[in-house]
Amino acid sequence: MSISKRIEKIQAQLRRKKINAILITQPHNRRYLSGYSAADHDIGESSGVLLIPARKPPLLLTDFRFQIQAEHEVGDMDVILYPKGLLTLLKKLLPDLGITSLAFESHYTLHSAAEKLQSMADKLSITLIPMDGMVEKMRLIKDEDEIEKIRRSVLLNEKVFQKIYKTIKPGQTEIDIALAIESTMRRKGAEAPSFETITATGKRSALPHAVPGAVKVKKNKPLMIDMGLILDGYCSDMTRTFVPVQASKKYLKIHRLVRKAQLAATREIRAGISAAAVDKVARTIISDAGYGKHFGHALGHGVGLAVHEDPRLSSQNRKHLKAGMIVTIEPGIYLPDWGGVRLENMAVVREDGCEVLNKDTTWLDI
Amino acid sequence: MSISKRIEKIQAQLRRKKINAILITQPHNRRYLSGYSAADHDIGESSGVLLIPARKPPLLLTDFRFQIQAEHEVGDMDVILYPKGLLTLLKKLLPDLGITSLAFESHYTLHSAAEKLQSMADKLSITLIPMDGMVEKMRLIKDEDEIEKIRRSVLLNEKVFQKIYKTIKPGQTEIDIALAIESTMRRKGAEAPSFETITATGKRSALPHAVPGAVKVKKNKPLMIDMGLILDGYCSDMTRTFVPVQASKKYLKIHRLVRKAQLAATREIRAGISAAAVDKVARTIISDAGYGKHFGHALGHGVGLAVHEDPRLSSQNRKHLKAGMIVTIEPGIYLPDWGGVRLENMAVVREDGCEVLNKDTTWLDI
Repeated sequence: MSISKRIEKIQAQLRRKKINAILITQPHNRRYLSGYSAADHDIGESSGVLLIPARKPPLLLTDFRFQIQAEHEVGDMDVILYPKGLLTLLKKLLPDLGITSLAFESHYTLHSAAEKLQSMADKLSITLIPMDGMVEKMRLIKDEDEIEKIRRSVLLNEKVFQKIYKTIKPGQTEIDIALAIESTMRRKGAEAPSFETITATGKRSALPHAVPGAVKVKKNKPLMIDMGLILDGYCSDMTRTFVPVQASKKYLKIHRLVRKAQLAATREIRAGISAAAVDKVARTIISDAGYGKHFGHALGHGVGLAVHEDPRLSSQNRKHLKAGMIVTIEPGIYLPDWGGVRLENMAVVREDGCEVLNKDTTWLDI
Repeated sequence: MSISKRIEKIQAQLRRKKINAILITQPHNRRYLSGYSAADHDIGESSGVLLIPARKPPLLLTDFRFQIQAEHEVGDMDVILYPKGLLTLLKKLLPDLGITSLAFESHYTLHSAAEKLQSMADKLSITLIPMDGMVEKMRLIKDEDEIEKIRRSVLLNEKVFQKIYKTIKPGQTEIDIALAIESTMRRKGAEAPSFETITATGKRSALPHAVPGAVKVKKNKPLMIDMGLILDGYCSDMTRTFVPVQASKKYLKIHRLVRKAQLAATREIRAGISAAAVDKVARTIISDAGYGKHFGHALGHGVGLAVHEDPRLSSQNRKHLKAGMIVTIEPGIYLPDWGGVRLENMAVVREDGCEVLNKDTTWLDI
């Protein structure tokens, strides 16, 4: 779907809700609806906002630091600078455009910023409407262009993994490996890692939020690598767990169980099934083997412009999957004082099944 | 100042304002008042909040993923988990603690989150008070312990710079150099870079927000490196500009002018002078030489737990500097189609002058 089609859909929704315009502040939503790829260093330091009137062309509002990038990326869209700040510009622009009701993204606007917006709106007799998730809902379903971009992101991520995997030796530290991964991502053309790379060895692989440390990889201890990158805006996310030289019987048993749960869940995924039902398939296999309480997180999550987005594949999510959603499938077993195994692939939900985007099979079926 | 002293100061302010408690959500403020060092991946994905009652000990509220880290870092402070989310916990905790008025950080709370907090508060007859900058105001003045931490952050950053500086050769790309810097930071014990390292060569050094690209360093073109790291929570920030092999006369002229502006501003800094007056000293030197419109940003900014914080050394900031503030001094001249020179040091404001924290002199006085 082209950006102009996406804008048309938002405009149609605004007209249905009888709202004159919406202010898009969330950076992924802003990129989705304009092509403008700047990130916000911080929610308090915006790189710009997109103003979409219901019946006029959208405008990208930003400051002089981003002018060249914005004009280059947004194509035909007009770029307007706010040398004296966004509010000063809006004060003039909104009345000029005849806007008397304005929606804003409640889930990506600071309370303090909303208060300033409200007092400006009061003075101009503009009705402010907090809105939540309108663009995220559109982003849930990926079209084939987006799926192709995510596929390329997954494949590049695997290429990086395979390159580094060959160089891993006992004695290297978690930090060494994480840095090698992130440098290789950048050298191979990724915009950035999609999250801070996790490399966790030995017992530390049982920590769901391990940060790479100066800890050495051992030949007979599990090593978990959870990595992803951003390519052309779209994220990948993959986990592999393996033992550098010699895996114990216990390791093999747990690894095979996690893989079995992953395969079973993958076979269930299709349009129409509930997210909770997919989670349950994997969870039942792990629970039946006696490790239920050691699988302490949801089975998966959506991936797109954001590395964590809806739908969550969790026991709480009764919603049904739809064709075009992209999810991770990442069961895990974490034993304190021993270590953990997590295996993560990504798949596109299709009408009658799913398409696994990963081609890498390193240590999957051992 | 110990953490308990900081908490006492906040509690005294709460009592003066007749507020029962404050909820601290901003991650640097949370760390400043508890020692808990987790970052928030995103403002929508909090790693915990600090509840400070006016007359009872503070509590750190978080979820099970961060329990071990939180308990390890906060010392005597109680850690309470919220398995069903923060709001569910607060619903019970606030009445238990007898809290009928609660402040929250308006500048680090999403509008959507504030709305949920408000509807909970309404049900419990609790008055919610948006608060802005209470902790930031305390953080403005650094005590000697903090200054020592920042000094060590600056010196480690210089060590990384000096190591990489020796290896720079024409033909390397901006990305190569940026990656080498960031890996070396991590290997030498930094928590992380304090911002994305800027390496900009040739004409690209005239872009204030250059992102490192696959562009090769040339022997006779300027190379600007702006880098900083986080050590023990505290940030450093330094810029050096130089020419790898052979500098032109024009380069030397501009470089010396920028350095002259930096030295003059440094000589002015002391407690009691206005931020605008310091900016003016540097700006006048650059303007008098005919480059005024090519120095398009403020002279400097505060540094501490955040890499950009108050005070801003800008022509707009009429406030007076105080002893214990830490600022950058970073004049620059940017000529489109030629390149730029920026030189940045950090200094502590003292009663009768300032203490420059940088010891590195690479290419400063050429």
